[in-house]
Amino acid sequence: MDGREGERLYPNEKLSEEKVFKDPVHRYVHVRDKVIWDLIGTKEFQRLRRIKQLGTTYLTFHGAEHSRFNHSLGVYEIVRRIVDDVFAGRPDWDENERLLCLCAALLHDLGHGPFSHSFEKVFHLDHEQFTRAIILGDTEVNAVLRRVSFDFPKKVAEVIAKTYENKLVVSLISSQIDADRMDYLLRDAYYTGVSYGHFDMERILRVMRPREEQVVIKRSGMHAVEDYIMSRYQMYWQVYFHPVTRSAEVILTKILHRAKHLYLAGYTFQTPPVHFQSLFHGNMQLEDYLKLDEAVTLYYFQQWQDERDAILSDLCCRFMHRHLFKYVEFQPTNEEMKKLVELTTLFKKAGIDPDYYLVVDSSSDLPYDFYRPGEEEERLPIYLLMPNGELRELSRESTIVDAISGKRRTDHKLYFPQDFLDDLSTKRNVKKKIKQLLYE
Amino acid sequence: MDGREGERLYPNEKLSEEKVFKDPVHRYVHVRDKVIWDLIGTKEFQRLRRIKQLGTTYLTFHGAEHSRFNHSLGVYEIVRRIVDDVFAGRPDWDENERLLCLCAALLHDLGHGPFSHSFEKVFHLDHEQFTRAIILGDTEVNAVLRRVSFDFPKKVAEVIAKTYENKLVVSLISSQIDADRMDYLLRDAYYTGVSYGHFDMERILRVMRPREEQVVIKRSGMHAVEDYIMSRYQMYWQVYFHPVTRSAEVILTKILHRAKHLYLAGYTFQTPPVHFQSLFHGNMQLEDYLKLDEAVTLYYFQQWQDERDAILSDLCCRFMHRHLFKYVEFQPTNEEMKKLVELTTLFKKAGIDPDYYLVVDSSSDLPYDFYRPGEEEERLPIYLLMPNGELRELSRESTIVDAISGKRRTDHKLYFPQDFLDDLSTKRNVKKKIKQLLYE
Amino acid sequence: MDGREGERLYPNEKLSEEKVFKDPVHRYVHVRDKVIWDLIGTKEFQRLRRIKQLGTTYLTFHGAEHSRFNHSLGVYEIVRRIVDDVFAGRPDWDENERLLCLCAALLHDLGHGPFSHSFEKVFHLDHEQFTRAIILGDTEVNAVLRRVSFDFPKKVAEVIAKTYENKLVVSLISSQIDADRMDYLLRDAYYTGVSYGHFDMERILRVMRPREEQVVIKRSGMHAVEDYIMSRYQMYWQVYFHPVTRSAEVILTKILHRAKHLYLAGYTFQTPPVHFQSLFHGNMQLEDYLKLDEAVTLYYFQQWQDERDAILSDLCCRFMHRHLFKYVEFQPTNEEMKKLVELTTLFKKAGIDPDYYLVVDSSSDLPYDFYRPGEEEERLPIYLLMPNGELRELSRESTIVDAISGKRRTDHKLYFPQDFLDDLSTKRNVKKKIKQLLYE
Amino acid sequence: MDGREGERLYPNEKLSEEKVFKDPVHRYVHVRDKVIWDLIGTKEFQRLRRIKQLGTTYLTFHGAEHSRFNHSLGVYEIVRRIVDDVFAGRPDWDENERLLCLCAALLHDLGHGPFSHSFEKVFHLDHEQFTRAIILGDTEVNAVLRRVSFDFPKKVAEVIAKTYENKLVVSLISSQIDADRMDYLLRDAYYTGVSYGHFDMERILRVMRPREEQVVIKRSGMHAVEDYIMSRYQMYWQVYFHPVTRSAEVILTKILHRAKHLYLAGYTFQTPPVHFQSLFHGNMQLEDYLKLDEAVTLYYFQQWQDERDAILSDLCCRFMHRHLFKYVEFQPTNEEMKKLVELTTLFKKAGIDPDYYLVVDSSSDLPYDFYRPGEEEERLPIYLLMPNGELRELSRESTIVDAISGKRRTDHKLYFPQDFLDDLSTKRNVKKKIKQLLYE
Repeated sequence: MDGREGERLYPNEKLSEEKVFKDPVHRYVHVRDKVIWDLIGTKEFQRLRRIKQLGTTYLTFHGAEHSRFNHSLGVYEIVRRIVDDVFAGRPDWDENERLLCLCAALLHDLGHGPFSHSFEKVFHLDHEQFTRAIILGDTEVNAVLRRVSFDFPKKVAEVIAKTYENKLVVSLISSQIDADRMDYLLRDAYYTGVSYGHFDMERILRVMRPREEQVVIKRSGMHAVEDYIMSRYQMYWQVYFHPVTRSAEVILTKILHRAKHLYLAGYTFQTPPVHFQSLFHGNMQLEDYLKLDEAVTLYYFQQWQDERDAILSDLCCRFMHRHLFKYVEFQPTNEEMKKLVELTTLFKKAGIDPDYYLVVDSSSDLPYDFYRPGEEEERLPIYLLMPNGELRELSRESTIVDAISGKRRTDHKLYFPQDFLDDLSTKRNVKKKIKQLLYE
Repeated sequence: MDGREGERLYPNEKLSEEKVFKDPVHRYVHVRDKVIWDLIGTKEFQRLRRIKQLGTTYLTFHGAEHSRFNHSLGVYEIVRRIVDDVFAGRPDWDENERLLCLCAALLHDLGHGPFSHSFEKVFHLDHEQFTRAIILGDTEVNAVLRRVSFDFPKKVAEVIAKTYENKLVVSLISSQIDADRMDYLLRDAYYTGVSYGHFDMERILRVMRPREEQVVIKRSGMHAVEDYIMSRYQMYWQVYFHPVTRSAEVILTKILHRAKHLYLAGYTFQTPPVHFQSLFHGNMQLEDYLKLDEAVTLYYFQQWQDERDAILSDLCCRFMHRHLFKYVEFQPTNEEMKKLVELTTLFKKAGIDPDYYLVVDSSSDLPYDFYRPGEEEERLPIYLLMPNGELRELSRESTIVDAISGKRRTDHKLYFPQDFLDDLSTKRNVKKKIKQLLYE
Repeated sequence: MDGREGERLYPNEKLSEEKVFKDPVHRYVHVRDKVIWDLIGTKEFQRLRRIKQLGTTYLTFHGAEHSRFNHSLGVYEIVRRIVDDVFAGRPDWDENERLLCLCAALLHDLGHGPFSHSFEKVFHLDHEQFTRAIILGDTEVNAVLRRVSFDFPKKVAEVIAKTYENKLVVSLISSQIDADRMDYLLRDAYYTGVSYGHFDMERILRVMRPREEQVVIKRSGMHAVEDYIMSRYQMYWQVYFHPVTRSAEVILTKILHRAKHLYLAGYTFQTPPVHFQSLFHGNMQLEDYLKLDEAVTLYYFQQWQDERDAILSDLCCRFMHRHLFKYVEFQPTNEEMKKLVELTTLFKKAGIDPDYYLVVDSSSDLPYDFYRPGEEEERLPIYLLMPNGELRELSRESTIVDAISGKRRTDHKLYFPQDFLDDLSTKRNVKKKIKQLLYE
Repeated sequence: MDGREGERLYPNEKLSEEKVFKDPVHRYVHVRDKVIWDLIGTKEFQRLRRIKQLGTTYLTFHGAEHSRFNHSLGVYEIVRRIVDDVFAGRPDWDENERLLCLCAALLHDLGHGPFSHSFEKVFHLDHEQFTRAIILGDTEVNAVLRRVSFDFPKKVAEVIAKTYENKLVVSLISSQIDADRMDYLLRDAYYTGVSYGHFDMERILRVMRPREEQVVIKRSGMHAVEDYIMSRYQMYWQVYFHPVTRSAEVILTKILHRAKHLYLAGYTFQTPPVHFQSLFHGNMQLEDYLKLDEAVTLYYFQQWQDERDAILSDLCCRFMHRHLFKYVEFQPTNEEMKKLVELTTLFKKAGIDPDYYLVVDSSSDLPYDFYRPGEEEERLPIYLLMPNGELRELSRESTIVDAISGKRRTDHKLYFPQDFLDDLSTKRNVKKKIKQLLYE
């Protein structure tokens, strides 16, 4: 018999005294519900302390050392303010969804692994699947959620997967103006110290209104939303896609590729990639996944600096000591693609493996999109609630948003190790030619 | 023949263009000197990214995840502003000491290891010795410093060790109002999000004046200094000595004790403490030390959760998942010491090893001290430069500083695992008695 | 028949939609009660826009141009947060007092006149009497308050006069840690731009608890209160008592003295002091008082620059163009008093009227005081609510507050027109002697 | 003989000690040049303390009570940082222009009168002419400037008039990214408390470079400039063109119209408009202009509340007690123009003079414009300095700026006194009809 069976269910159980977390972005995070308090105390949630919110960005903006734990509390706090201070008592709002919103907000990033962006790309992982697995699997998080009600974990997972039937609830966590984005823009701006990323969140919260299908924004708050969209745009190009950060990510990706390659090729590691084995085999289980955080990853990178394989060792040294790749602009035109082929040949000649040392990286973002039904990656547009009760899509009201709406911006860069090319003790002429091609 | 021998020495070599780091506390950190740029790029300095500025504080204030790398750049920037914007051109200031000040500021914390406070206590280490060793040893940092001049590393080490002959230079880095303290107060306040810790640093910098023996403060800036001292006081008691942080530190300390004990007792680890061996033997070398950062430490703690030894495993789980000890106030009076003895006996009876689970922790601080010649840990007082050119010790001018000057405040707490005591499935009566004693 | 008779009474009438004021200190000021909205719209309250919060301080800190209107909204907002977010639902709190608290907070400074400090001193006015008169007299404010209930204006006046029977209500507005002080410290710091004056108000609000006799503070918030008291101390000495501000006040005071003197002596003004007449006669009525704001006062000062009376004209020019008096330190010792007598004689000899041009100004403050029953100007001490439910007076718990508690600090300065003394075209020798005496 | 003739000229005379002003926006304003110090002390400059930076905006955003004195110091400080910290020593920069830049920055708004926007419109004044007149006329400012050199006042006036031959100098004060705009955006955001208006000025300053014809921006700072342009856009529509502020401006304008009308019609004022006479006659002289500040203006408005003329009295009451006009949207289409004619007739019928009580107000702004040679009000575009040394116009590089470039946005509103229409004791039916027309 399960010992928990006898435990009291706590859908609405409150803490005897409100708990607060001091938060530099929202000043305080307030917790009154026992279930939230217990979720924060689970080991799966505490694990988020060992995963940085911005992956390799700290190598560009040294202040950006904050974790996903940080951000998750922030998203929770924003949703709490929306449902408790803005939605409570309004017609289209169902108070029974309150706890579900709070839990989904808190747990939405639960499945992130170390340096998710790179790991997901290399190993074809999907953090959302892991989020689901943690919520539904045999975990402390699941045990806490189950005490609310039998099907509560499933509901939380559905909200995060955007399949939950109440679309209003979904839109609080995932839409073009959700609590997730609002928190990360403010938080990442705070920790990096950049002045972009600020917008008047308090104003936006005040003008949010619940509608059946999604949260909408009162027309009087349109300018605050414009400001938010511009902040998002700036943060993407100034911080998230910063070319130096991408250089670190390129190296990280190549470390993972190399280690996997060596492992599958039967290379004998001095420090065998125990924690990565199932990843390399493509059959990672939840239990293993939960053990893989950034401390563990960095442990391996540190150790692998001393591996005999020159490429793995070099890439790990680069990552640990921030000896990053340099870059030049790159356009995927016929002409430049031909140059890339030529460079690839020259790199081989120079004894520098182009698979690891000549890398095109592309970043791309759509600052805001109106509704394009049927298209891939359909995005829910932002609706304004007009004084007459009508809804209007944002880009029809805002000149500025209209101007940038639906316009994808893409940037390509070619990364390579400048120091290798500068070392003219070997292959002097080939290297000179490479440099000519790169900088002509 | 050393390849570096032919390299150009660069005492005053400037970068072709000033480099800046975006910093959330000082807005920008400016680097013009090539030697500073090169020092930042060394692997020993980059290693500071993997050591948190505030050790276990992030378990209390989740925002406090910033590293010593962060802080070191900040101290450098403050000293740079003092020497370039305030001291430059003033009589008592020797421009030849400029680069020395900058390097010493940047490197002053270089020898810190993971969770220094706990490691130093348990293993009787001294981070200042390691700082010295890194600066003078066979390191990238030393190679950069040597290019300034043959004896430059030695000078830098002396400034940090406070033995350098020019006491003014020393006082910029280590005194009761130095760049180190100013940066950490502001920075730790920023990252934790507390409102203490703010003071008008810009004002203080403007009124600093070089004197032969130390930096002094113009009388007109006295109130800013009072504010700084109060900030320091509040940060110590609100943040640095926070009882929850100390609980995490107690657990960390006990993990280290247990692991050492097991190792020396011949216990067979599933994950042997390779990186800790020399520490346990008391003969740690620089090379090993540099490999020991917080990622590595957390890797072991993660692994040791699965060790067979119940105490090591439990303590590691506690640390990783933040299941901390609770505490009660404790006064080292005869009566309470007797109670502690009694509790020790009862813990043993209850099967809870008091060596690891019943811990008195004491914190103590002196917010400001005037000069007490000859006393142990002599502290340089702060001098005010009066309009007539005279110097007066701060506490003689400031009512508020006088009120708290020389008054040591100490706090003792008794830590223990509440959850063990709450589990009444075994030793019910002993545990009840323990609780009675603790909370009576 | 009174047109208002038929109007609906509105003790709990809410606005159809909450109104907000953007406030730089509290971000937003929220108004839901119609009575508050209507009070803000009265002409007596709007008049506070024409009275600066910090009198002559803007001549020292140019940012300090904010009005009492500003501050009054801020005090209201703080009290609103206390009663709505912290007190609501707690045992010792009577929800029926809510609206009274809000109105008293909003109106507490209603009776302030232009440059109150100086006007009150010269004309022996009491702004609290005028506050009472406005609330109880034939005013728009009274008409709004009366619609709550017949005796509501009286109650509001009593709260502000500290005679209301529910002392808890009084203590929210007037105690050593009230909404008035919290707002002005934060606000004045914001507008002057000084870094003192910051403290964690949100924390203090969270730990405030209603008790029968007064608001008390939970022990866990003690450090935030310490910080608040230190901020207050610094703001007094750095901002409110700034010697340059006092110089402007000295001149202002002397203008008023001179104008009164001339008026009573039958001097024929080019611009007769119409708005001041009743003040000069000592029989000012409410109606006249309400017409006297800082715009009107400055109008006269501007005009009086062209009066034939050399003293009035000179003092007005000084005030308008910020040609202030210089100062030297002054101690009211026998010796210095003798010097002052000597200086008085010399000023007369030099043809500079010492009644207007040689002024001792004293400032004095008690940063915090414990309870001294029976003493004049008895001050309610701050009580901490201990975990065991007991109350302890703050200075018994806090080392820092104890250190400064009850210690009055006083500062005297001697003001005079340096430019007159520098003009050596007349009375050269006397002026030289004066300068010798002043600066010896 | 002029007493000043013997005085020392001070082109480069420095103060014995740098003076600082505490400024909430730039932290400190630094003054080292004696000429700047002396200019600040002139009565013409001190007069700017009595003229609000944002006119009637304080009636919408209560925090916006700051003066043009404030802003002028800020513009000076920005220019000082540019020339001293960024331009000094660069090729295209002529150090001899330094003092000229500083003085022009400080004095650029010197000719502003009370509520300039409205006064200029009603009386066809031009503050730039008055700036010129103060600088070149018989004033304290002129006397200070002349001591630099005989033709220095003329040069300062030319820079402000944009006719100075060195266009780089002009562009620092007047261009699409000048010190004036940067200061007012940051300052007005600070005082109103809105979150728009922030951008990374420090970054922009760092990337400004002197070129022969104007200041240009390094390409790497483009995003900071985008952010600045968006801030400007938001501030215009959220703050400067706020419909409530415009309501106050409409009333103010109508007061001036009415007073002039009455004066010219021979109406006998109880408080005759002495300070306005020459304005009404259209022959205002500098001396009179300098006496006309906002204190004087408010004095008259206060007095005129009691005039017998119902319109003047009513409008003054409205302005003093913030009983503003309401508004509805208005489009200058044929249809709506016809409606306006109809409304005009109905207002007359209702006994409400439409000349004063039915007002269309239009606001219009162009957020950024590229170069349109030959067009009226030609605006200098912002040029980016590309890594290869080339200059590119901003909108060709920035998608976002391109999207809004050259797009004028205009807004029309129709203002009227709702309270008059709500008073149904007279002309009930006409008023009902008016309301129907307004709100249909």
